[in-house]
Amino acid sequence: EISPGRLMARIAALGRIGALEGGGVCRLALSDADKAGRDWLVAEMEALGLTVFIDAIGNIWGLRAGRGAGAPVMIGSHIDTVATGGLYDGALGVLAGLEVVAALDGAGIETAMPIAVAAFTNEEGARFAPDMMGSGVYQGALDLDAMLATRATDGGGVVGEALDRIGYRGTDAPITPAAYLELHIEQGPVLEQEGTRIGAVTGVQGIHWTEFTVHGQSNHAGTTPMALRRDAGQVAMRIALAADRIAAELGPPQVATVGVFELSPGLINVVPEQARLTVDLRNTDGAALDAATARLLAEAGAAAEAAGCTVEHRALARFAPVVFDEALVGKVAQAAAARQLSVKRMPSGAGHDAQMFAPDCPTAMIFIPSEKGLSHNIKEHSDKRDIVAGAQVLLDLVCDLAGA
Amino acid sequence: EISPGRLMARIAALGRIGALEGGGVCRLALSDADKAGRDWLVAEMEALGLTVFIDAIGNIWGLRAGRGAGAPVMIGSHIDTVATGGLYDGALGVLAGLEVVAALDGAGIETAMPIAVAAFTNEEGARFAPDMMGSGVYQGALDLDAMLATRATDGGGVVGEALDRIGYRGTDAPITPAAYLELHIEQGPVLEQEGTRIGAVTGVQGIHWTEFTVHGQSNHAGTTPMALRRDAGQVAMRIALAADRIAAELGPPQVATVGVFELSPGLINVVPEQARLTVDLRNTDGAALDAATARLLAEAGAAAEAAGCTVEHRALARFAPVVFDEALVGKVAQAAAARQLSVKRMPSGAGHDAQMFAPDCPTAMIFIPSEKGLSHNIKEHSDKRDIVAGAQVLLDLVCDLAGA
Ligand SMILES: NC(=O)NCCC(=O)O
Ligand SMILES: NC(=O)NCCC(=O)O
Repeated sequence: EISPGRLMARIAALGRIGALEGGGVCRLALSDADKAGRDWLVAEMEALGLTVFIDAIGNIWGLRAGRGAGAPVMIGSHIDTVATGGLYDGALGVLAGLEVVAALDGAGIETAMPIAVAAFTNEEGARFAPDMMGSGVYQGALDLDAMLATRATDGGGVVGEALDRIGYRGTDAPITPAAYLELHIEQGPVLEQEGTRIGAVTGVQGIHWTEFTVHGQSNHAGTTPMALRRDAGQVAMRIALAADRIAAELGPPQVATVGVFELSPGLINVVPEQARLTVDLRNTDGAALDAATARLLAEAGAAAEAAGCTVEHRALARFAPVVFDEALVGKVAQAAAARQLSVKRMPSGAGHDAQMFAPDCPTAMIFIPSEKGLSHNIKEHSDKRDIVAGAQVLLDLVCDLAGA
Repeated sequence: EISPGRLMARIAALGRIGALEGGGVCRLALSDADKAGRDWLVAEMEALGLTVFIDAIGNIWGLRAGRGAGAPVMIGSHIDTVATGGLYDGALGVLAGLEVVAALDGAGIETAMPIAVAAFTNEEGARFAPDMMGSGVYQGALDLDAMLATRATDGGGVVGEALDRIGYRGTDAPITPAAYLELHIEQGPVLEQEGTRIGAVTGVQGIHWTEFTVHGQSNHAGTTPMALRRDAGQVAMRIALAADRIAAELGPPQVATVGVFELSPGLINVVPEQARLTVDLRNTDGAALDAATARLLAEAGAAAEAAGCTVEHRALARFAPVVFDEALVGKVAQAAAARQLSVKRMPSGAGHDAQMFAPDCPTAMIFIPSEKGLSHNIKEHSDKRDIVAGAQVLLDLVCDLAGA
């Protein structure tokens, strides 16, 4: 059985690392706070007797031996956060993994298969794009060398340097697990609104991240007639609004977000010479998502041309929608039902490390409700009752899959 | 007579202070580069035998005695620049003032009235709003204490602290001059396009600067349906586009510029919680400008409300249009014609220190052409021939007004 106190204590302990005044945490990938979180996690793993591994992209996993050798059942997620993140996004999955190990130890249970608890590097993509970087490299979907050469958006050098700086560029070789499980907060409003306790996640929607850079001409805000301007900022605004309009026209589940928007030189009385923005487009339907991205690129080009500007774009992430293993999703639903927990099959709106495993091994996720659907927000919160319920379903599944 | 070599040498010398790689200068108001420029200017004034004064907002003026005491004929402008400025905007007016003094000295001319050469603090408004801060305080149009308490947009403290830091908070009392003259580059395309050598400036259009801050709710870009968002960024984009649309609908001479636009937290997969933007609206017609600003505020409020956000605004500058002294404008035109220079009466699109003097003393400006109309751009350029012609017209006017 899960120990609520032990699990909540670990969540609180990790939540103090990178804690923000006013609540929430900032543990951006490969930052000093991330290093402190990693050091704490490794110590916890060692205290539990796990053998700790670190690979070339800084993924950390701790292995609990089974009666047999072979591939482990892996419980994974991440401990990096966005700049204004909460205590649960990612951390819950990793710490529930530790709690599963502690519960098995406490009950003196040896499983047939080994169990691994993993924390993947830079799941959030907040400092280095793309997101799911560590799990993507682990499973071979992303190229190690390309990822090591990825530059931070905050001017903090490339991934490889950042790994060296915090001492987490390892040499261990990844092994694809026999099965992959991830417990995560929903990060959306559905479970709470319906009063459902557990989400049996059927898959993850596709994610396209695109960065646009518009080049115009800087000039004086007072002396330059509107007709003679080549205003990079106004072109960028039109791209941002096009993203919003495309989402409105396609309707749910298409979403579009402009989270980054910068003007240069960024002065009140200077027509912007350059603008940079990012667009995050998502859809459960891969073809619809491809079409939305194609349309956005076309509208961006047209907006630039109409204003005498030029626009470049860079694909920062292109993840197709993923469908989880039907049998394993069914087991999640059964495990919840066996504990008298209401359960709903649902897709995930957020990207998750699990999606990198789905093509290669049976994979499933367990969602628990997020208060008001808030996430990537310092007010992110989930109820203790739900946290414990989710961890219990995870433990039950691990016992089933690993052969308790 | 003006000495072209001596004038161009001073322009080059000041242009090396805060010079940017690739051309242009960055001498933001009250920065280290501004201090270096001020130190150089004071030394030049002293070398010319001028008595140097500094007032409580850091304005610098050097006085050349006349046969009589009384109020001086003042030649003024500024030496601060935007972050990506050119060598001529402001600097030309001040350095032509020094050249006028040097030319009078060289010819052994004593004038009836004193002559003052002035450099006003923070004309650009690029680091501290409003613009024309020093001349506004000098003439009593802006409140000294309020200006000293104005915070830098780059987090560099308030004006008073910045003045103390660079050692330019003086104690001298301003005196309103008998007449005010300013030579400046046009910063727009009109003179060059028409092949006209000199602009006799008839006045300055009104300037309204407004800062908007939009408050929404940050949330996850993947899990939050479009209908449940309160996206501060999208509201800000709508305000920016409304400014552009208002200018398009009113037509020339109305202009609108969004030069500053910031999202917070500014992450690719987070719906923005807060957005800040500035809008610079200008028009030669004061009533039309007031109406444009009122309409923008109304549209901003409506855009915020429609998206479940709130918006605050702050008036960073409200300068009504200014008309220069008709007799003095006529003298500019005559002085140009007497030198066989083609001349055009024209309003100024940019704000200038001269506009702060116009209500209180006869005031006029001399414009010279700007190559391609570029300004607030490191490629800002004016022809040496035009620079010398403008300075010559200035010298002729000073001799006329001050009684050579
Ligand atoms: N789960 C989660 O927040 N992942 C971050 C990647 C994304 O979905 O933007
Ligand atoms: N002349 C000039 O560039 N003034 C700066 C103030 C403004 O017009 O924005």
